[in-house]
Amino acid sequence: MQADDQKKMVPIWLDKDLKTVKVIDQRRLPHDLVIADLKTVDEIIHAIKEMYVRGAPLIGVTAAWGVYLAALNSSLIADFECECARIKKARPTAVNLAWAVDKIVDNVRRHFKVNDNVQPNLIKSIRKAAHAIEALESENCRRIGEHGLELIRDISQQKKGQTVNVLTHCNAGWLACVKYGTATAPIYAAFDNGIDIHVWVDETRPLNQGSRLTAWELGQYGVKHTVITDNAGGHLMQHGMVDMVIVGTDRTTRTGDVANKIGTYLKALAAKDNHIPFYVALPSSTFDWQARDGVRDIPIEERDPDEVHFIAGELEGRQRKVRVSPVDSPAANPAFDVTPARLVTGLITERGICKADEIEILRLFPEFKNESS
Amino acid sequence: MQADDQKKMVPIWLDKDLKTVKVIDQRRLPHDLVIADLKTVDEIIHAIKEMYVRGAPLIGVTAAWGVYLAALNSSLIADFECECARIKKARPTAVNLAWAVDKIVDNVRRHFKVNDNVQPNLIKSIRKAAHAIEALESENCRRIGEHGLELIRDISQQKKGQTVNVLTHCNAGWLACVKYGTATAPIYAAFDNGIDIHVWVDETRPLNQGSRLTAWELGQYGVKHTVITDNAGGHLMQHGMVDMVIVGTDRTTRTGDVANKIGTYLKALAAKDNHIPFYVALPSSTFDWQARDGVRDIPIEERDPDEVHFIAGELEGRQRKVRVSPVDSPAANPAFDVTPARLVTGLITERGICKADEIEILRLFPEFKNESS
Repeated sequence: MQADDQKKMVPIWLDKDLKTVKVIDQRRLPHDLVIADLKTVDEIIHAIKEMYVRGAPLIGVTAAWGVYLAALNSSLIADFECECARIKKARPTAVNLAWAVDKIVDNVRRHFKVNDNVQPNLIKSIRKAAHAIEALESENCRRIGEHGLELIRDISQQKKGQTVNVLTHCNAGWLACVKYGTATAPIYAAFDNGIDIHVWVDETRPLNQGSRLTAWELGQYGVKHTVITDNAGGHLMQHGMVDMVIVGTDRTTRTGDVANKIGTYLKALAAKDNHIPFYVALPSSTFDWQARDGVRDIPIEERDPDEVHFIAGELEGRQRKVRVSPVDSPAANPAFDVTPARLVTGLITERGICKADEIEILRLFPEFKNESS
Repeated sequence: MQADDQKKMVPIWLDKDLKTVKVIDQRRLPHDLVIADLKTVDEIIHAIKEMYVRGAPLIGVTAAWGVYLAALNSSLIADFECECARIKKARPTAVNLAWAVDKIVDNVRRHFKVNDNVQPNLIKSIRKAAHAIEALESENCRRIGEHGLELIRDISQQKKGQTVNVLTHCNAGWLACVKYGTATAPIYAAFDNGIDIHVWVDETRPLNQGSRLTAWELGQYGVKHTVITDNAGGHLMQHGMVDMVIVGTDRTTRTGDVANKIGTYLKALAAKDNHIPFYVALPSSTFDWQARDGVRDIPIEERDPDEVHFIAGELEGRQRKVRVSPVDSPAANPAFDVTPARLVTGLITERGICKADEIEILRLFPEFKNESS
C-alpha cells in the first residue's frame, strides 16, 4: 500500500448495502490487512470488546454505527434503546463510547415514545447522525493536526531544522480515529509541511498497538520512526533524544487528568523529570465533563490476563501466539492509567491548545461550564 | 521441581571432569530446563553475550570460570592474559565482569611474568579463586537477604500482618546470582520467616526476564506473585497496591546512581511520585568505585534490534519466536538505564543498608575511599 492509498483509507465504513459495517480487524495488523463485516449489535459489541477496533474516537464511531444497526434490527423504540444500552457497556474507559450513543439516543428520545415503532425515516436519520459523528471526528482530528503542527514547528525552528524527535505511546493514529489520528495528526501535518521529524514508537504491551499499528501507519506514510520497548523512553529522555511527547487519551477530566493506555503515566513522569513537554491530543468527545479526579473517578478496565501471558505475532506467514510466562503464574492486566494534570504540559484540542486545568479548558469549551456533577 | 530441589539448584557449576563449566541456558526458561556445557573461552563469551547466563553477579562468576578455562587452555601467561582481556569485553554494563576477571588476573600478575608457562599448580589456584568468588557472591546474597528482611518485616508490622506487596523489575534472583539472588534475597527470607508477601513481577521487555525467570523462581519457591506488563507498575502504585520496590543493579556509582535493566528508572520515578520506598540490592562487587555520575559514566549496552521485533515463547511444546513489528520498521534496544541516586531510598548491601550517597556508602565500605579517579 502506498502513502496515497493510506490517505484514502479509513478503519470503518458503512457498506453500500446499508446493512453492513466494515472495519479493519486491527488484531491482524501489521502482518495481514483483514476487513471484518459487522451486521448485528452483537457483532459490534464483540468487535469493540475483542479490539478489532480500538482507540477512543474509533470506539465512539463504531458505537454510532452500532446504534444504526440497532435501529435497523429493532421493531420498537424500547428494543432499540435496550440494544443501545448494551453497546454502551462494551468497554468502560473510553468515554467516547457513551458520548456517541447518547448523542443519537437522546435525540430519538425527544421525538419518540418507547412503544412507537422504529420507522424507516428514523433509521435514515440515525444513519445520517452516525455519518455526522464520523465526519465530526475526522474534522476535529484535522484541526488537532493544525494546532499541534505549530508546536512541532516551534521546536524545529529552535533546533534550526535538525530532526524533531517525538515520542508516542500506544496508537492514537488514524487507525484509532477515522482520519489523521489525534496524537499523530500534528506529526503527519509536520511531515506534510516538510519538517524533519522522527517518532519513537513505544511498543505498548500487552497488545503492542505501538509496534503493530503506529509503526505500520508511520511507515506507510513515510514518516521516520523507531520502535522501542515501553521501558526505553526514560533512558532516551535522559540523553536528550526526545524533544516532545504526544499521546492520545481515552477519557480526560474537566480538570485535565488524562486516562490513556497503561504506561502513559510513566512516560509523563520521565518527561517532567527531564523538562520535556508532554502533550495530549484529543477531540472534545473525549472529555468527561462529570469527572473531576481522574485517579478516583475514571473506571480502569481490567482485561484478560492471557493478553499478558501470550504474545501474538507472525511466524512462517501465519499469526501465532507464544506463551511467555510459566503456566502456573497469575497475571494482572489493567488496560489504562491516569496521568495527573500536573504532569501534562498542554491539551491539543480541535479548538486550540490549552493548559490541563479547568479554567483553561472551560475557556475553550465554555458550553460545558455547568455540566459538572 | 519442588521448592527443596530449587534450594539446592544453582545456575552455574564446574563439572566433576574439572574441564566443563555447566550453566542453565536461561534463554529456554521457563518452558525448558536445559543445561549447556562450556569448555572454551569462546563458549564462555558466547554464553555471556547471548545471555545463556545474565545478571551482574552471575556474569562475574561465569567470567571467573572463563578465566579458569583460559588458564586450562593456555600455554603461556601472555596467552592467558589475552584470553582474559577478551572475556572482559563480552558485555559492557555489568561491572562484576571486569571485577571478577581482574581479581584473579591481578593476583596472577603479581607472581608470574608474561613469558612464564601456565603450570598445573597455577591452574589449581585459579580454580580455587573462581570457587572463592562463587562462594563470596553466595554469602553476600545471603547477608543481603538478612538485612533486607528487616525492611520487609517493618512494613509487615506497620500493615499489621497484611500482605506486603513488593514490586521488582527484571530478574535479580538466584538465577542472576548463585544463590538467594540480590533483590529476591529479602523476599525469600521474608517468606521463610512466615511473612505474608506477594510480588508484582514486571515482565521486563525485551527479553522478559521477569515473566520468564522471576515468575518461575518465585513460583517454584512457593512465593505468591503476579506477572504484569512493564507499563502497569505506576498505576498499581497510584492505587496503593505496592508497598515497596526492590531491584538489583548491574553497576552502581560511588555516589549511588544505579544502572539496572532498562525501565528501572521509570519505576523509580513512579515510586517517588507515590511516596513508596525504592531499594536497590547489591553485593559490593557491583560498585564501580571510579564512576561518579551514572548517566555520564556508565556505558549502556545497545543490543540487537531483533530482540524488540521478535518475542520468544512456547508454542505447541516448542520454543518459537513471533515477529510483532512491521518488517520495514527499525528498532532501538538500549539494555539498561540509570536511576539517579536522588530516587533511591536505600542500598541493601552485604554489610547493611545505607542511603544512596557517597558518604553513607563509604561509611560501609571505607576501604574504597581513595579509589575514585
